[in-house]
Amino acid sequence: MLNNWNPPRMPEKEELSQRLDAARNRLYELQMQIKEHKLPVLVLFEGWGASGKGSAIGKVIRNIDPRFFKVATMSAPTQDELRRPFLYRYFKEIPEQGKFTFLDSGWMDETCHEVLEGKLSGDNYLLRIDSIRRFERQLTDNGYLVLKFFMNITKKEQAKRMRILLDDKDASWRVSKNDLWQHDHYKKCKEVFNTYLRDTNISSAPWYIIDAGERKWAELQVLETLIANVEVAMQNTGYSAPLLQNTFPLVKMPKLADVELKGKEISDEEYRSELKILQNRLGELHNRLYRKHIPVIITYEGWDAAGKGGNIKRIAGALDPRGYEVHPIATPEPHEKARHYLWRFWTRLPKDGHVAIFDRTWYGRVMVERLEGFCSENDWKRAYNEMNEFEKELVDWGAVVIKFWVHIDKDTQLARFTERQNNPEKQWKITDEDWRNREKWDLYEAAIDEMLQKTSTTFAPWYILESVDKKYARIKALKIVIREIEKGLKRKGEDV
Amino acid sequence: MLNNWNPPRMPEKEELSQRLDAARNRLYELQMQIKEHKLPVLVLFEGWGASGKGSAIGKVIRNIDPRFFKVATMSAPTQDELRRPFLYRYFKEIPEQGKFTFLDSGWMDETCHEVLEGKLSGDNYLLRIDSIRRFERQLTDNGYLVLKFFMNITKKEQAKRMRILLDDKDASWRVSKNDLWQHDHYKKCKEVFNTYLRDTNISSAPWYIIDAGERKWAELQVLETLIANVEVAMQNTGYSAPLLQNTFPLVKMPKLADVELKGKEISDEEYRSELKILQNRLGELHNRLYRKHIPVIITYEGWDAAGKGGNIKRIAGALDPRGYEVHPIATPEPHEKARHYLWRFWTRLPKDGHVAIFDRTWYGRVMVERLEGFCSENDWKRAYNEMNEFEKELVDWGAVVIKFWVHIDKDTQLARFTERQNNPEKQWKITDEDWRNREKWDLYEAAIDEMLQKTSTTFAPWYILESVDKKYARIKALKIVIREIEKGLKRKGEDV
Repeated sequence: MLNNWNPPRMPEKEELSQRLDAARNRLYELQMQIKEHKLPVLVLFEGWGASGKGSAIGKVIRNIDPRFFKVATMSAPTQDELRRPFLYRYFKEIPEQGKFTFLDSGWMDETCHEVLEGKLSGDNYLLRIDSIRRFERQLTDNGYLVLKFFMNITKKEQAKRMRILLDDKDASWRVSKNDLWQHDHYKKCKEVFNTYLRDTNISSAPWYIIDAGERKWAELQVLETLIANVEVAMQNTGYSAPLLQNTFPLVKMPKLADVELKGKEISDEEYRSELKILQNRLGELHNRLYRKHIPVIITYEGWDAAGKGGNIKRIAGALDPRGYEVHPIATPEPHEKARHYLWRFWTRLPKDGHVAIFDRTWYGRVMVERLEGFCSENDWKRAYNEMNEFEKELVDWGAVVIKFWVHIDKDTQLARFTERQNNPEKQWKITDEDWRNREKWDLYEAAIDEMLQKTSTTFAPWYILESVDKKYARIKALKIVIREIEKGLKRKGEDV
Repeated sequence: MLNNWNPPRMPEKEELSQRLDAARNRLYELQMQIKEHKLPVLVLFEGWGASGKGSAIGKVIRNIDPRFFKVATMSAPTQDELRRPFLYRYFKEIPEQGKFTFLDSGWMDETCHEVLEGKLSGDNYLLRIDSIRRFERQLTDNGYLVLKFFMNITKKEQAKRMRILLDDKDASWRVSKNDLWQHDHYKKCKEVFNTYLRDTNISSAPWYIIDAGERKWAELQVLETLIANVEVAMQNTGYSAPLLQNTFPLVKMPKLADVELKGKEISDEEYRSELKILQNRLGELHNRLYRKHIPVIITYEGWDAAGKGGNIKRIAGALDPRGYEVHPIATPEPHEKARHYLWRFWTRLPKDGHVAIFDRTWYGRVMVERLEGFCSENDWKRAYNEMNEFEKELVDWGAVVIKFWVHIDKDTQLARFTERQNNPEKQWKITDEDWRNREKWDLYEAAIDEMLQKTSTTFAPWYILESVDKKYARIKALKIVIREIEKGLKRKGEDV
């Protein structure tokens, strides 16, 4: 990419200024169409120190109404960000439909830094590249336009620019230590950049290398590339992204109809004594995973009235309230609906050492959203793989991921609905929607069977909790959580 | 408070356990009523190290559905938080209507720390106390229940508990250096706590000192206090908070009808040359305030079609895109509407050294929300003072606050509306709502006059930008912004 790169020919002054005027006006016109087409545009500026990333962004946004864009400057990750998955702080910044986000350096810069500092190599580097490629592909599959610019300047030009900045006492702070180091190791850096660019040059989000030696010329290249890509992207409405073949190892799951519910029960006495022992044990483990910085993500899906709430309560009740959070997931709010559907889960991920419990999850995509038509067929069909990728990301980060399906049969649900209806204290727990969903039991069952088959990966399998006897389900859940956390601790070299 | 405090009498074991059962059940019942009454409840746990704050929270939340509460553990502020106003990270955590937030230590802990470290004293301490009192009062005035518990234990009890923790290798990390220091300086700490408790014991959010020497007994006191307060708060629906007398120095503002718009114009030529000079100057100043860590907040209100957007663009165009953000303010989203109306502004405050530009602001409260009945009369009448307090907070933090009213007359608005309607490229800028608002011009004018009179404080005065000639208004805005930033730099001892 950088090594065999031939800079495009810079036009003569007059042509340059004419084309610049045209491009600026065109972008101004386009912004409303972007809004109407609900096209989200993520523009990443990477490149050499002093290559003019900030100034290029400044020039582009002059043609856009401030309501339609956001600029995010990604400096070194904070302590809090270091305790989240690598992509967390980038996922947070993705734009809403119809808007731009401009990133002043991003995941390339952070990755190359780590490589140059010797902190990222071999398999870990490859894992990172995989994760970046998936991230970018998921965005474009979900209708995002992802534009990646690399601002390229020669070593000589960099020297010149840095000298000018350093000579100006009001501007010298802009040359960071890192910039100086980069300049001294220009060749080595170029190699690392080149490898990275090659590794992440994916078809739906290719790299654009900008000849940034002259500022107006750089501006023109950026504007024209941006405009051309926006125009193409707007023609793509109704586009269906390809459904990728599953590449994750799967655990065979039974059909719900074949899950034996009878006999899965436990006496009150046994329940009380087991509960106490298991909750104490979980409390101890919570302490230990906090110190070992292991994040834990426990997710609950299940039939209405299956007993999710009470089950969650027994897990949560064993934990130190300072170290866990329960996320009840309801209908997305407008700013959530306007983004990639996983955004509201990415932004709710726990810090390492903490436990996040999700009461309903991203699997809404292939259940309620599928059945109620809240997303397109292509969307939910693609989602199985996207969710597997998401969970792979979490596991690679070091998380323990535990997914529960809380299961009852149709008669048990009816009995519980009726009891809720008749008990004034429990009436709030039952809504018309619950009854409507119940009418679609069979459709849901088919969707759930498909979901269980397609998303029970070896690294994040589903566990079915037979919950006709809620006590049985709670004890089973506690045991699974304890076992999985113990495994997580062992992976970190702890005795359990 | 602490010095003359008599612990309440602990009941006998049997009574204790009966009352505990009753209280736990009562809280469980109450949670749905809290939801229905849309009561937001903020519960702050402060107290000695090892007094059992976390464990008390753990016990209380066992009786509440996880959908209805959040626990926030406030450890030392992060680098990012240190670059925001003191209350920023606490304001962020306030609950939605119908929900609880439990804070494991908070603004008391942080303040007393600073006092004990010798970093906060004299006038600065008093400023802090003022700001905390206002914060708590604003919450309760806006319908929040704010409960403040101080978990009290003797030095002897603290010693005992710390010894137990230190002896357990899995728990010893729970005793922080700070806890040890506190124990060694128990008397001194008690003095500081006592002063703070006295200073912040306000009538709408008094302190409850909990005898935390015995865990079940502590739980009972907390539960019973919580329940009693929730029950009282739920009877207070429709309550009107008192309208406080203004205590801030005001600048006299003209009525809008008396603002001379004629002759406020500038030639194209002069505009272009001035614009260039002023934008360059502003660009330089932006660099300097970044290095001096001065936050700048520029707010825009004005008639529809007055030219806010273009004006903002000329300010923003002069700034480094990495150091500013424009916040377009539209109708609040559900999670915003469910909180104190200033919440969505608090959470959008810039870091120090950065510029935040608000395109419409918190003043919506006394304009559109007032006129459309989106809030009660008591709400908007109280808001003048609340917004002055908010801006005082910002100025005390060190911010430069600049408020613009972009002004045109009714005929100019009609001409611009008509032009927008007839120009396909500008049609998106005009909606039916704009025409509806125009019909209420006179009502708006009266509301705006009242707003300008009541919220033009000496520390955050309003500036009227005469914008029949938009160029004139832009130049005027740039000059004011430059002047105010220069003043801000001077206050930090900079030559300008």
